Amino acid sequence: MKKVVVVKIGGNIIDHEKDLIKFLKVFSKIKGPKLLVHGGGKLATQLCTKLDIETKMIEGRRVTDADTLKVATMVYAGWINKFISAQLNALGCVSIGLSGADVNLIPSEKRKVKQVDYGFVGDVSADKINSDFLSGLLKQGICPVISPITATKKGQLLNTNADTIASVLALALSEKYKTKLMYCFEKKGVMQGDKVITELTAAKYKDLKKEKIITDGMIPKLDNAFTCLEGGVKEVVIAHAANLSHKNTSHVGTRIVKTKR
Amino acid sequence: MKKVVVVKIGGNIIDHEKDLIKFLKVFSKIKGPKLLVHGGGKLATQLCTKLDIETKMIEGRRVTDADTLKVATMVYAGWINKFISAQLNALGCVSIGLSGADVNLIPSEKRKVKQVDYGFVGDVSADKINSDFLSGLLKQGICPVISPITATKKGQLLNTNADTIASVLALALSEKYKTKLMYCFEKKGVMQGDKVITELTAAKYKDLKKEKIITDGMIPKLDNAFTCLEGGVKEVVIAHAANLSHKNTSHVGTRIVKTKR
Repeated sequence: MKKVVVVKIGGNIIDHEKDLIKFLKVFSKIKGPKLLVHGGGKLATQLCTKLDIETKMIEGRRVTDADTLKVATMVYAGWINKFISAQLNALGCVSIGLSGADVNLIPSEKRKVKQVDYGFVGDVSADKINSDFLSGLLKQGICPVISPITATKKGQLLNTNADTIASVLALALSEKYKTKLMYCFEKKGVMQGDKVITELTAAKYKDLKKEKIITDGMIPKLDNAFTCLEGGVKEVVIAHAANLSHKNTSHVGTRIVKTKR
Repeated sequence: MKKVVVVKIGGNIIDHEKDLIKFLKVFSKIKGPKLLVHGGGKLATQLCTKLDIETKMIEGRRVTDADTLKVATMVYAGWINKFISAQLNALGCVSIGLSGADVNLIPSEKRKVKQVDYGFVGDVSADKINSDFLSGLLKQGICPVISPITATKKGQLLNTNADTIASVLALALSEKYKTKLMYCFEKKGVMQGDKVITELTAAKYKDLKKEKIITDGMIPKLDNAFTCLEGGVKEVVIAHAANLSHKNTSHVGTRIVKTKR
């Protein structure tokens, strides 16, 4: 079975051009099939503010109305995606910037309105990914760079969580590849105070959530991580973007493990 | 030799969502390999105005500074490109939204400063197109949808004329395909008063330019058209977007011909 690395880059790294370029230099040197999923950082929020588009948050999550969707698509699938693609190509890493809306790559469904209407937000599942097209690109030595915009069967664009996209792509690829998923951001990993948790089992995760040591945005990321491991992804690592350069990524950041070794 | 149709859509059609969707429905039904190049309409100008980015025009042409480039990339490669891609996929026409920056598809060079500095504007040539990648997509039955953003070897994104992109792509594909290029917009073709010029030779074009019947934006479009014919493109047609539905497109709009038949 061939290997593939799915890297998600997000957070502050995207907002700082110098850090992003530094990260891309390291990423471009990863050998073998690889795939990059990016988030949007604060650019979309900044653009919304400039355009007087009100940012509505419900329970800490952004509501995507029609104007916000347009901004998200412009920023994520436009500026950031093409910036990264152009940089990687210049670094000799042949890359293709895509969204989930292209070639039915990541079909999504508009999140159903329960208590809260999140607007134009997409939910995705691993079994619907067009992984044949991705494998075709990887075989040609092309690195897909994927922005978190997806579309429904009817062509409605939807804003979609980039961590979730990375995880469903990793899951879909794990049928054909020995897949490693790396969530890279501006922290050293999952933190307990100022220390990195080097290994995290489901049991330990449960405890740390109870103790409120793991909170907020880290929770959906880790939920995704465990779902991936259970679904067939071989390795999941949460680490600082700079640590991508370490040859043995098993020893950096936080390694998510099924059971304590 | 297989056939391919390269369609450029621009002008008012892009600005009006209903017209655009109507056009895409017709486009999606074209049989065989096809490729769509789109411009940006007035959306980029509107966004620049909202963001207080000054629009500088020199001799009727826009100067692209760093902020304008960002807006152009967001609007063309982001919103419009993904909107079209999602719509076509929903119509059953499997499409992939790309920019010239992806997979080194359309390498460009920053326009040299002579009397005028147009800023981040790209010049392209047909011999540098990654036509192997395009052929690969066409063979898989995938329709490339291409936005007019390109990149230099060093990864600098550049705003590029969409008419020119359509023509260099048609030229590059004409080595492998019997290529037809269609410029579609909101007029019935090249007009002489209220009549469509059905056939235009280089000699007639020269005369009509002298008589100031053909002016402004139509001139670079037609220069591109004649370059294409001379370079090996089999057919060039300039027509109303609605006329794409006619089965025999040779009899609609303005047909550019080498010599008078």
